[in-house]
Amino acid sequence: MIVSYAELAGTLERALAAAGLESDRARRCAQLVADSTRDGVPSHGLNLFPRVVSMIRSGAIDPRARAVHVAGHGALERWDGRGGVGALNAYDAMEAAIARARSNGIACVALGNTNHWMRGGSYGWQAADAGAIAVCWTNTLPNLPPWGAEAPRIGNNPLVVAVPRARGHLVLDMAMSQFSYGALARYRARGERLPVAGGYDRDGRLTDDPSAIEASRRPLPIGFWKGSGLSIVLDIIAAALAGGRATHEIGADPEHETGLSQVFIAIDPAMIADAAAVDRIADDVVASVQARYPGERTLAARRQTVQTGIEVDDDAWRFAVRASA
Amino acid sequence: MIVSYAELAGTLERALAAAGLESDRARRCAQLVADSTRDGVPSHGLNLFPRVVSMIRSGAIDPRARAVHVAGHGALERWDGRGGVGALNAYDAMEAAIARARSNGIACVALGNTNHWMRGGSYGWQAADAGAIAVCWTNTLPNLPPWGAEAPRIGNNPLVVAVPRARGHLVLDMAMSQFSYGALARYRARGERLPVAGGYDRDGRLTDDPSAIEASRRPLPIGFWKGSGLSIVLDIIAAALAGGRATHEIGADPEHETGLSQVFIAIDPAMIADAAAVDRIADDVVASVQARYPGERTLAARRQTVQTGIEVDDDAWRFAVRASA
Repeated sequence: MIVSYAELAGTLERALAAAGLESDRARRCAQLVADSTRDGVPSHGLNLFPRVVSMIRSGAIDPRARAVHVAGHGALERWDGRGGVGALNAYDAMEAAIARARSNGIACVALGNTNHWMRGGSYGWQAADAGAIAVCWTNTLPNLPPWGAEAPRIGNNPLVVAVPRARGHLVLDMAMSQFSYGALARYRARGERLPVAGGYDRDGRLTDDPSAIEASRRPLPIGFWKGSGLSIVLDIIAAALAGGRATHEIGADPEHETGLSQVFIAIDPAMIADAAAVDRIADDVVASVQARYPGERTLAARRQTVQTGIEVDDDAWRFAVRASA
Repeated sequence: MIVSYAELAGTLERALAAAGLESDRARRCAQLVADSTRDGVPSHGLNLFPRVVSMIRSGAIDPRARAVHVAGHGALERWDGRGGVGALNAYDAMEAAIARARSNGIACVALGNTNHWMRGGSYGWQAADAGAIAVCWTNTLPNLPPWGAEAPRIGNNPLVVAVPRARGHLVLDMAMSQFSYGALARYRARGERLPVAGGYDRDGRLTDDPSAIEASRRPLPIGFWKGSGLSIVLDIIAAALAGGRATHEIGADPEHETGLSQVFIAIDPAMIADAAAVDRIADDVVASVQARYPGERTLAARRQTVQTGIEVDDDAWRFAVRASA
């Protein structure tokens, strides 16, 4: 099914309002979900939307809660997400970090008691659109075995790094697992092998067979021991600064993944550099690399879907249409 | 050859003083190099020392230059390393970031025109010893092919993340390449294969043969496309904030690797959390993971070498002894 951006965003907005969000909040959240879908990341946009609405309906997410400042001031703040809509909490936290960075140069908002932020890259694009460099991350439920272990005891804890650039921002959005379960399912559905080894099979052998990894529940951290270590320190920093839960305190069921901890760091380079200089450096590096840069594929998908419309998953789209009626 | 910490540090201090460093600077730099060697990372300690002294003698490193503040204030500052000793510039930049974080909660010092910082982890341990969370990174000469390319056009840009903890800090110190050239050489010298694929051979096949990767000059980024993307954005942020050089502007010869750009971010959690709470969370996460955590091996090496003395590379030690005479 192909829909226009306006149709997608409008339907999502009505569905979110029907689920209990106030109108300005429904509009903002619909935009975030529609943008991710338009940008070629439906797995963290429309396809995740039914779960968000279900969690609102079940009471796991409070559709009217807003994140509030609870400690610190200025350049370092702790916010309580109060169990609200994860994408809106994350958006508000990044807005606050960007605003504080305008006066301090750099600022950090740690957000606890929040929910799945959907596409992490959204908050990188948000910062870059405002001319800010950003580094942000979230913890997740335990879905990845640490290096040297077989049971999933660490999160895949997506990390986002964003750089503003006039000719197209650079936005890296990477989980600590080499392939998400969603990606494994998509390769399996297409009957394809992974392009590189993505985990272990039940016999403990590295494999590029997505179904063998789904069966063993042993996907690989990026860089083996390196991504495992990075996941651990990102989890501790998020939980400690937010005063929230660490991965091991979050239940293993994705349908009930709540109480996440996140960190949003924004840097306003204007205090020490002019935008043209940052731009020139980013352009020069992109030109020198002669390979794909983070965000390039997103921009290409965005350009294409503006022309062709957005291909949506039939089930997720039907869910949204019903929920909006 | 086995030496004591005191003998190692004293010899290095005399050698650095003879090379032209002022006495307090020689002592600090010797301590940084000795600590890395004691902690089981001689590749970035004593074994790198001859190159540093050679670069001082050749004029590539100015032994008396000190990094100076050139722009910004408070939470975001740009410093010029003035071509001085990389380890001392990095130490001073992290000290400044920690001090600014005490009043601002978070602070960032971007350091340009500096030199190899030797063991990046040193600045993580430094911050954690001061009770601060830290994130810092450096760019490097082009020594890694970006994902999808064959020529080395990005740096392995080590990233350090540190968390203070009473029972032993967590310090992640990871380059963006799966294995450094130093690590490849050590596996080759021992006649061993790599534990996982570390790069491509000359025919473009993934391999765990270290010599095949040395021959092709095609080591792998961690996480394939992910580490490649992270390297690119870290490089741009460092060069843009520091007003310094990006990887493509740094010559490809390690003996003449100068003019690096680095970022030092420190967070003082005391503004929003008490140290006991941070400690408890870190302890709980470490216990829950039931696998190696970042910094664990360093602490084990430190404990052991305190008892046994430090095994040093004969050539590097002879160089240091001669240079100290």
